[in-house]
Amino acid sequence: MIKVLGILASPRKYGVNAKLLKTALIAAEELNAVTKQINLYDYEIKPCIGCLSDILKSCRPPCVIEDDMRKLYDYVQDSDVIIISTPVYWYSPPGQLKNFLDRLTVFENMIEISGRSLVEGKVAGIIAVGNDSGAVMTAAQILMTLNSMGYAVPPWGYLSFTIPKDQEIPKVRLLEAANVGRVTVLMARKIEPRKIEWFDPELLEQIYNKVKEEFSKIQDKDEINKRRKIITKLL
Amino acid sequence: MIKVLGILASPRKYGVNAKLLKTALIAAEELNAVTKQINLYDYEIKPCIGCLSDILKSCRPPCVIEDDMRKLYDYVQDSDVIIISTPVYWYSPPGQLKNFLDRLTVFENMIEISGRSLVEGKVAGIIAVGNDSGAVMTAAQILMTLNSMGYAVPPWGYLSFTIPKDQEIPKVRLLEAANVGRVTVLMARKIEPRKIEWFDPELLEQIYNKVKEEFSKIQDKDEINKRRKIITKLL
Amino acid sequence: MIKVLGILASPRKYGVNAKLLKTALIAAEELNAVTKQINLYDYEIKPCIGCLSDILKSCRPPCVIEDDMRKLYDYVQDSDVIIISTPVYWYSPPGQLKNFLDRLTVFENMIEISGRSLVEGKVAGIIAVGNDSGAVMTAAQILMTLNSMGYAVPPWGYLSFTIPKDQEIPKVRLLEAANVGRVTVLMARKIEPRKIEWFDPELLEQIYNKVKEEFSKIQDKDEINKRRKIITKLL
Amino acid sequence: MIKVLGILASPRKYGVNAKLLKTALIAAEELNAVTKQINLYDYEIKPCIGCLSDILKSCRPPCVIEDDMRKLYDYVQDSDVIIISTPVYWYSPPGQLKNFLDRLTVFENMIEISGRSLVEGKVAGIIAVGNDSGAVMTAAQILMTLNSMGYAVPPWGYLSFTIPKDQEIPKVRLLEAANVGRVTVLMARKIEPRKIEWFDPELLEQIYNKVKEEFSKIQDKDEINKRRKIITKLL
Repeated sequence: MIKVLGILASPRKYGVNAKLLKTALIAAEELNAVTKQINLYDYEIKPCIGCLSDILKSCRPPCVIEDDMRKLYDYVQDSDVIIISTPVYWYSPPGQLKNFLDRLTVFENMIEISGRSLVEGKVAGIIAVGNDSGAVMTAAQILMTLNSMGYAVPPWGYLSFTIPKDQEIPKVRLLEAANVGRVTVLMARKIEPRKIEWFDPELLEQIYNKVKEEFSKIQDKDEINKRRKIITKLL
Repeated sequence: MIKVLGILASPRKYGVNAKLLKTALIAAEELNAVTKQINLYDYEIKPCIGCLSDILKSCRPPCVIEDDMRKLYDYVQDSDVIIISTPVYWYSPPGQLKNFLDRLTVFENMIEISGRSLVEGKVAGIIAVGNDSGAVMTAAQILMTLNSMGYAVPPWGYLSFTIPKDQEIPKVRLLEAANVGRVTVLMARKIEPRKIEWFDPELLEQIYNKVKEEFSKIQDKDEINKRRKIITKLL
Repeated sequence: MIKVLGILASPRKYGVNAKLLKTALIAAEELNAVTKQINLYDYEIKPCIGCLSDILKSCRPPCVIEDDMRKLYDYVQDSDVIIISTPVYWYSPPGQLKNFLDRLTVFENMIEISGRSLVEGKVAGIIAVGNDSGAVMTAAQILMTLNSMGYAVPPWGYLSFTIPKDQEIPKVRLLEAANVGRVTVLMARKIEPRKIEWFDPELLEQIYNKVKEEFSKIQDKDEINKRRKIITKLL
Repeated sequence: MIKVLGILASPRKYGVNAKLLKTALIAAEELNAVTKQINLYDYEIKPCIGCLSDILKSCRPPCVIEDDMRKLYDYVQDSDVIIISTPVYWYSPPGQLKNFLDRLTVFENMIEISGRSLVEGKVAGIIAVGNDSGAVMTAAQILMTLNSMGYAVPPWGYLSFTIPKDQEIPKVRLLEAANVGRVTVLMARKIEPRKIEWFDPELLEQIYNKVKEEFSKIQDKDEINKRRKIITKLL
């Protein structure tokens, strides 16, 4: 059974973000997923202090900082899918969500310790919606981060749009939010989250001779000379 | 059999981007994928003229512009996976690649015509590497675009870094490039690309009553009043 | 006399960011500016709770949240120039700096109350440097925010690059950091910071007739018809 | 007299971008600026071929590519201010505008040849408006590029928003566009564009001893040890 963790990153528990997240979670349940929602503003999340910049292997669960992240780490590890619904504060996630993302580094940094990210093969969905522009930039920042930690992103894995204050959410946007719930669960079903199989640290060894051989072909003298003639025209 | 289309977006066919792309393609072949590489600078790609801003349904294959994109459209449609390797020109893809991405809109815009993106469920990998900063911003732009067209992104689906001119590519970067080839093919195997099943346009109807019910719970008077007291303190 | 506030957003007071900021401040002093440095991690900065999404005019100094921002607000208001030196945490500012930026909204939101941003015409410089990619994306986020609050940005107003851990800062980078200090002070001298003159809320009234007249010319029938012929080719 | 070059990057000469640009130019004329508008889609702009990645000093005016950029280079050099009005194509500028920006590198790269960017001290304004999200990301990309070439950015130097197709432009947005025209001209008046004075290549020499001295203070043993105790807690 697929476990979905919905993360509300808005301080307004009755706002657009709460509604869109709920819609996604209901859609996930339609596919028999088990869902759980947390409101990030209910937790104390202190800022990351960047330990790994001093000692690479010092950054690891449960983080040297003792605060509510210890509970949140458990929730993240226990889930197959996370869906983050965030407002747009100056074209990016609120600092509260950014602190949460920064602190997730303990999972990713296990690559440096055990060779494996602890979130490898999980699935992410993003809902970034605000009443001023910057929604895509916000979604991009979160999505690039999670993908780089090992999360997979299904087709249409994010939803980002601008909506004027107090305007009712158009039905087409509810549909899109519902589909974020749907596609993340579908993806989780297909890829068996938490299966450690994606990044292969031995891969280069197997193909290195072929790679070197191809590189020597790429260094094509004729091509280089042809280009050189063009680019030196003004010299 | 998984078909991988490698797209080189650098005018330098002997450079870092060419080498990293080749590495990814070799890794894909190790998983029995069939690969094909195209060099974007060998094709004439005229700029998108934004037809859909006038008449929404006018944007469709094979595009009103008659140029080499007609060949490139075929290659894209015939592939399960695309891997784009691009240099970083001012923190973003070169105009030549941007024109290519803009012109791919004909596939995505079929949502407005037939209800379905023609690239739904395919898989994307990105390699964005330059000798100045801006690599992540470049990868983000491409990845957000392709995901929004219907492409899935596997864990570690993009590779972005900065490398000084003339420096040999470090082995760890070759390994990462190889893994872009690996994870995209693995993902394609799991999700059966081109299967039309992700976005469900009927989904909202099924859950709408439940959604409305939950929305009324979200409008929690106590929560709203509690917050109102706080936020009006300075008024 | 120009007052420069240097803001260190790294928890590592002995790191690259501290050094580059110091270099910028020394250069500012060479131009007779008075400088002051604060270390953001020494202050408790709680997350913004987005009051303005409920009641637009509720967001104003000194913010309903009582914490160390009250001191920081004074420092910002007392300065002509701010130079922010930040590490790169997942392609963006650390949550601690993001909380600081979010909370600065009280100054900008005065537009909605008194008609004027309290930081209008001040000058901003950004130093965003990390040991992994994402430096430009980080600088972009901060710069777009500050400019939209009313800060001016001098030529080469930001510096962003990637530097491997433990590598000494190259001299060319120190030079660039020094110039961030220089150009911000030069700019502040020229534009008389804090002079309320930039955004003119009455401007449209003065030119509205001319604007409407030009708009009617822009709606050129021939141009529209010419384009229509092209874009309907596939219909 | 301040010369303003308005650059329309939309293929739709009768659209929102054309109107907003015209509004900005009318406002600039109110401040006695001389304005000129060019429509980028009327020119053939071939893609940049990245000569400088092979031979750094080969990239210089008038570029080895012979096309309409030769005219456009003249327009840019002859202006004190450029205002770019662009639609949003996949969260970024259309390829046509990206090719234009890529090709402007010849001016910036003169730093490597004569020591000076040919656009140092000019002023930039950006209008990025589309009917889907991504406007800020588009504006950010252009603004970061131009600032890094040597352009100054006045307070509220960019305008970015999302507007549904066929919706009339709200008056508040026209006001903001007019102010882009205003603030760029105001800034140009204050900073004497084209004056070569911003980046000082000799600056580091003057302050280097002081910099080194301060760096040794920054390497504070107590601070480093205090932090080390914290970050090693899990080791």
